[in-house]
Amino acid sequence: MTSLRDRWAPGSLSLGGWCAIGSPFSAELLGRAGFDWLCVDLQHGLIGYEQMVPMLQAIAATGTPAFVRVPDGDAGTIMKVLDAGAVGVIVPLVESAKQAAAIVQACRYPPLGNRSWGPIRASLGVRGFSPQSANRDVICVVMIETPTGKANLDEILEVPGIDAAFIGTNDLALSSGLQPLGVGDSTALVELLESVRSACRKHGTVCGIAANDAQTALRWVEAGFDMLALPSDIALLTQGARASLQAVREATGSRTDRAEANDPVEI
Amino acid sequence: MTSLRDRWAPGSLSLGGWCAIGSPFSAELLGRAGFDWLCVDLQHGLIGYEQMVPMLQAIAATGTPAFVRVPDGDAGTIMKVLDAGAVGVIVPLVESAKQAAAIVQACRYPPLGNRSWGPIRASLGVRGFSPQSANRDVICVVMIETPTGKANLDEILEVPGIDAAFIGTNDLALSSGLQPLGVGDSTALVELLESVRSACRKHGTVCGIAANDAQTALRWVEAGFDMLALPSDIALLTQGARASLQAVREATGSRTDRAEANDPVEI
Amino acid sequence: MTSLRDRWAPGSLSLGGWCAIGSPFSAELLGRAGFDWLCVDLQHGLIGYEQMVPMLQAIAATGTPAFVRVPDGDAGTIMKVLDAGAVGVIVPLVESAKQAAAIVQACRYPPLGNRSWGPIRASLGVRGFSPQSANRDVICVVMIETPTGKANLDEILEVPGIDAAFIGTNDLALSSGLQPLGVGDSTALVELLESVRSACRKHGTVCGIAANDAQTALRWVEAGFDMLALPSDIALLTQGARASLQAVREATGSRTDRAEANDPVEI
Amino acid sequence: MTSLRDRWAPGSLSLGGWCAIGSPFSAELLGRAGFDWLCVDLQHGLIGYEQMVPMLQAIAATGTPAFVRVPDGDAGTIMKVLDAGAVGVIVPLVESAKQAAAIVQACRYPPLGNRSWGPIRASLGVRGFSPQSANRDVICVVMIETPTGKANLDEILEVPGIDAAFIGTNDLALSSGLQPLGVGDSTALVELLESVRSACRKHGTVCGIAANDAQTALRWVEAGFDMLALPSDIALLTQGARASLQAVREATGSRTDRAEANDPVEI
Amino acid sequence: MTSLRDRWAPGSLSLGGWCAIGSPFSAELLGRAGFDWLCVDLQHGLIGYEQMVPMLQAIAATGTPAFVRVPDGDAGTIMKVLDAGAVGVIVPLVESAKQAAAIVQACRYPPLGNRSWGPIRASLGVRGFSPQSANRDVICVVMIETPTGKANLDEILEVPGIDAAFIGTNDLALSSGLQPLGVGDSTALVELLESVRSACRKHGTVCGIAANDAQTALRWVEAGFDMLALPSDIALLTQGARASLQAVREATGSRTDRAEANDPVEI
Amino acid sequence: MTSLRDRWAPGSLSLGGWCAIGSPFSAELLGRAGFDWLCVDLQHGLIGYEQMVPMLQAIAATGTPAFVRVPDGDAGTIMKVLDAGAVGVIVPLVESAKQAAAIVQACRYPPLGNRSWGPIRASLGVRGFSPQSANRDVICVVMIETPTGKANLDEILEVPGIDAAFIGTNDLALSSGLQPLGVGDSTALVELLESVRSACRKHGTVCGIAANDAQTALRWVEAGFDMLALPSDIALLTQGARASLQAVREATGSRTDRAEANDPVEI
Repeated sequence: MTSLRDRWAPGSLSLGGWCAIGSPFSAELLGRAGFDWLCVDLQHGLIGYEQMVPMLQAIAATGTPAFVRVPDGDAGTIMKVLDAGAVGVIVPLVESAKQAAAIVQACRYPPLGNRSWGPIRASLGVRGFSPQSANRDVICVVMIETPTGKANLDEILEVPGIDAAFIGTNDLALSSGLQPLGVGDSTALVELLESVRSACRKHGTVCGIAANDAQTALRWVEAGFDMLALPSDIALLTQGARASLQAVREATGSRTDRAEANDPVEI
Repeated sequence: MTSLRDRWAPGSLSLGGWCAIGSPFSAELLGRAGFDWLCVDLQHGLIGYEQMVPMLQAIAATGTPAFVRVPDGDAGTIMKVLDAGAVGVIVPLVESAKQAAAIVQACRYPPLGNRSWGPIRASLGVRGFSPQSANRDVICVVMIETPTGKANLDEILEVPGIDAAFIGTNDLALSSGLQPLGVGDSTALVELLESVRSACRKHGTVCGIAANDAQTALRWVEAGFDMLALPSDIALLTQGARASLQAVREATGSRTDRAEANDPVEI
Repeated sequence: MTSLRDRWAPGSLSLGGWCAIGSPFSAELLGRAGFDWLCVDLQHGLIGYEQMVPMLQAIAATGTPAFVRVPDGDAGTIMKVLDAGAVGVIVPLVESAKQAAAIVQACRYPPLGNRSWGPIRASLGVRGFSPQSANRDVICVVMIETPTGKANLDEILEVPGIDAAFIGTNDLALSSGLQPLGVGDSTALVELLESVRSACRKHGTVCGIAANDAQTALRWVEAGFDMLALPSDIALLTQGARASLQAVREATGSRTDRAEANDPVEI
Repeated sequence: MTSLRDRWAPGSLSLGGWCAIGSPFSAELLGRAGFDWLCVDLQHGLIGYEQMVPMLQAIAATGTPAFVRVPDGDAGTIMKVLDAGAVGVIVPLVESAKQAAAIVQACRYPPLGNRSWGPIRASLGVRGFSPQSANRDVICVVMIETPTGKANLDEILEVPGIDAAFIGTNDLALSSGLQPLGVGDSTALVELLESVRSACRKHGTVCGIAANDAQTALRWVEAGFDMLALPSDIALLTQGARASLQAVREATGSRTDRAEANDPVEI
Repeated sequence: MTSLRDRWAPGSLSLGGWCAIGSPFSAELLGRAGFDWLCVDLQHGLIGYEQMVPMLQAIAATGTPAFVRVPDGDAGTIMKVLDAGAVGVIVPLVESAKQAAAIVQACRYPPLGNRSWGPIRASLGVRGFSPQSANRDVICVVMIETPTGKANLDEILEVPGIDAAFIGTNDLALSSGLQPLGVGDSTALVELLESVRSACRKHGTVCGIAANDAQTALRWVEAGFDMLALPSDIALLTQGARASLQAVREATGSRTDRAEANDPVEI
Repeated sequence: MTSLRDRWAPGSLSLGGWCAIGSPFSAELLGRAGFDWLCVDLQHGLIGYEQMVPMLQAIAATGTPAFVRVPDGDAGTIMKVLDAGAVGVIVPLVESAKQAAAIVQACRYPPLGNRSWGPIRASLGVRGFSPQSANRDVICVVMIETPTGKANLDEILEVPGIDAAFIGTNDLALSSGLQPLGVGDSTALVELLESVRSACRKHGTVCGIAANDAQTALRWVEAGFDMLALPSDIALLTQGARASLQAVREATGSRTDRAEANDPVEI
């Protein structure tokens, strides 16, 4: 199996799964589904550090590399997450080169950064694990999801060690005063996304984005995004449950007075 | 909202969701999906008592009644599960009237049974909770999934307090020396299922069965089953993840050397 | 501090606290309250084995000995609970000398019983722990809470190794066709309780009972019960919350449309 | 049931319960007790994020809205807590308008703030959930508990979006060089509390405070406080246990050499 | 990597690690240590079902097969443990062919047994998983640790599907009225062990035993035992901590008034 | 038993154990081993807040005082950890007097600091607990592990309330461009360590360091270090497992194709 780092390059499409449910078993199920990577989401997922640890262990049993999305750029959290065996971090709401540089520092041992030594789980079963090998293998992804982040994108991408920029489409729309994708006229939003993507390509940086359905996913692939997050476990579960219920209710005219789902939140 | 007991009758179709993932959040998501009931599966689900408790609490927040499938007919377990607030139990591998009667006893307070008093969570928020109200409301479901169970079906259904018989299709096939549904000629298996269903109808007992896809679900509805378990959380998650991956991989020709899912286990 | 065994005798009143909430912290709080013993309730409490373990550890920090009430007489469970450091077990629904003898066997190492060796936590910090010391120190309590149990009480109390009989008042009332204590005429029920107590005294066995308020507690003390369970954590929490709310609501005439508590379940 | 926001106004007394024990079950018990709101305390409570989640789920089953007190003003934590379904946050140790404004920002989606989109649990079962509805419904409470916070109170209360100021009585006393309430002469402390309250009233902001017993609670109500935290679960449990023990020990002269409780900590 | 089943034969020495600490991380550490198998101990280990699940997941990440020792022969528990992915079960206190046969039945799908279908985690990532493959791969180990078990050993070993007999040395000594190994004259005990071993060899069944130190381990290897459990995680941790403390305390004459360890319990 | 504070002085050697495994039971085992103190490691240990709490409870049962190493100097975290009952904190990566002063502030109640009142577990069972007693008893340890920290050591040690400086040997080596201890020529590194130690002695501050084996431990004792962390639970477990395996594999020539351990990470 090739390592994620060895396959990491703009133009080399990778497809990811997204864990927002705090369960080692659902994580293991997604880890067996054929994704190139998973992301355990500590920001908007209902997951904390202690639930994350057995999820990383369960995913490890499947051979799928796992990112962790941290709640913010806090260095202590980034280091704990990497010690626990994440292949890399996805950091939300990055808006400046200074922030980006601090994040990279937290991901790299000296002399490249200030990560503290103690790769307690990260080193398990890795032959020849060393500060140097870790500095090479850990993947550092920043999220661009505000007008400020977009305005400073070039300087952010110039920070050595930024391996990808991942767009937070909903946050970018909301903070830019635009409607979510698919609501009303999306031209301005799509142009915004495209401008981030092309800036990444210009800098030779991988550009990531999420898609909540297959149609959108294919649209992003065609548009040239490199790192694609497919529908989250929440979306899969909610959409699947609704579809199976709807099929029977429609065919049989059966009804319920129980709670009915609203649309799953896109994260 | 009508109570489950008030709607419980042969011919009154109810559609259920199935929780095999030990997570209060995925349970709450299914609880919001519009099912008439959920089942928290302590037999084949990867769930123990302590994970079940917050799942029942989370499901309670959605207003959906929750069964618990217990690992076997052990009375102590049945009582603990009911104390924790399950609307009823689903008991696997029942093969005789004697077993069925013991199960009913564990579900009912004296003088109808020997359930021990202590409805520590079951009584919360229930106005007028009493031994009598509990004896009326708790639903007792036995699984018929062996040739012996099938042979003794009539005497089992005659036990007062048996509210439904639920067929374990895979186990019934396996223990009867037949192929699973959909593999080879299913005529003998379908006849077996039908004979259980018609025995239930004859006794005025609800008859339940599971369906792992919409097509099968509709088939069971047409066949006159009353209580239908739709695809489990595992099936929804695995099938959804695969479908979304496949859509992109096929359209783009992208490939992976990561683990790929086998078919989800039908439970 | 004298050991519980050294103080264990009919006529030597002991006052216990009752843990039905599965929390090591609430257990530690009760462990600091001055009780002679606590009981971690695996029968009607919302507690399983894995929550029980850190509760026993937390209680150990307070120096208070802890019983565990098991869901039933299952030997494997009794042994696991003792290995984890319980000072003894309280076993519900005992109805015969045979059951009582099997319970004692599970509590004692050979040659007195068939407890399997592995006191993994029970031996921690106990100088000179041995099969003999454990056989001496573990306290074995059976619950009498059905007419059958009452009928066979003498033969049960004759089983060597039964250290106490604890009355399940509510279950005894319910299974005897009587109202709970305090509802209607309680004469017959009180006579029943008294007859259990006097049988215990005759056999030189400690007799236990629970009291859900101070008045009842004093009544039982006067009646000569030896082992008294005071109101459970649930009762304390619910009664305390209601009383503090009521004091303010009444004085101020403030009202709420939120949920209001029913009476806590007596366990 | 009216929403908490709809009833939120100075002069409209609300009574709250306080969860410092990390247990979904004790939280559900308090949620059934009739409080107008609960607070899950991540600052001084023995509770972390992962225990908080099932507590919020359990409380949701009771219909009682739940605040979360966060350890400090960290934006990532505030957002995670709101995503998990808290009706609002209570933030300790606020000392300046700048801090207050940052806290409001974390509680509001653009354009009012910078909360990141992903209301993964907050949106469940809420018809018409949107950034706008969330901005309206989330309640933002700051704690005033230092001389600096007191000195800057007016500018803090002028920050748009501050829904209440809650006094940390013990911290305010300690940091002001005063004795706790009820120890020695409390005149200066009471004047301090009153000056905070009247500043709140002047700005039309709700003013909150805690009371560890009924007498103090009534005193605060009379003094015109709007948001009253009644004794915490710890206080209820400890005081209740002691009172029940004391009643029996005094009447019977029984004694123990076990640990005895010190006073519960007021938080 | 060869499967455990493929290497399973009398005379083919396998060395195992023993997990009595309920931690997925310590289990993963042992899984990386080079053992041929691990055992997660639900009998005397401080581990329940819900802690076992993430331990099996963590061990799976290391490629080491994991047995589970169940508390007793309860079929529901055996099936749950196998569904969760154990390579086999170790069942304590087996005393008759009837018990042994029931255990084998719980480990095998029809027509060989009555295991219920639902290998929810066991099938994950196993190409071609089927009732037949599971019946072949699951390893069924019974413990001989009482005089009765010893007396019935031949009939037990004749039960088809018993893959190994594992001696519980301490329990066998205790129940036979002998001292533990190494205390006093061990001749009778050693003869007992040897007679079990030779009976196994005669029936072509693997014979297992535990060793709490290297010297004993070598002794058992020489004696011809096939399946050797090396010191448990508890023993390793306690012995290691003591040795490192002792080295410094002796060299420096430093002393402590803290707790000092008794000998770790052999399980 | 003397309190840790009463024995705390340069020249008074204390020996500590290190918990990186998130398990209350392994913590209790180490708590029984005879260490003068334990450290629960939230920085590099695989432990979060919620696992830490029952670990502190379990350690309390052994009478051994427990430090907590926090991930960084965040005041909210330090306060939560102390409220939960840690005897003190060990704070990594301290580089300036300003940081050191902020850490001390978080450890002390006014007027010495700004710790917020709410010692919810810390006060349990402590007679006469008060802000003053806590300010006296809590031990505040900073880690020196970067060239900047080393450069500012004197000003750091002058901060009132710094009770010890603990060297992070690996981080100090890595950030100083040196090899880890024992790899190549260690002269420069050892001089660095010695200069920290002598600066501590000059300021009358305790100086701590870790040793991963007995030989190194003795070396540090001879060199005059006061506070010595002996091998962590990870090291004990991994080294012990390997040693026991190696003894048998070497004597018998048995081999495995299972995973083999790399060296445990020194933390």
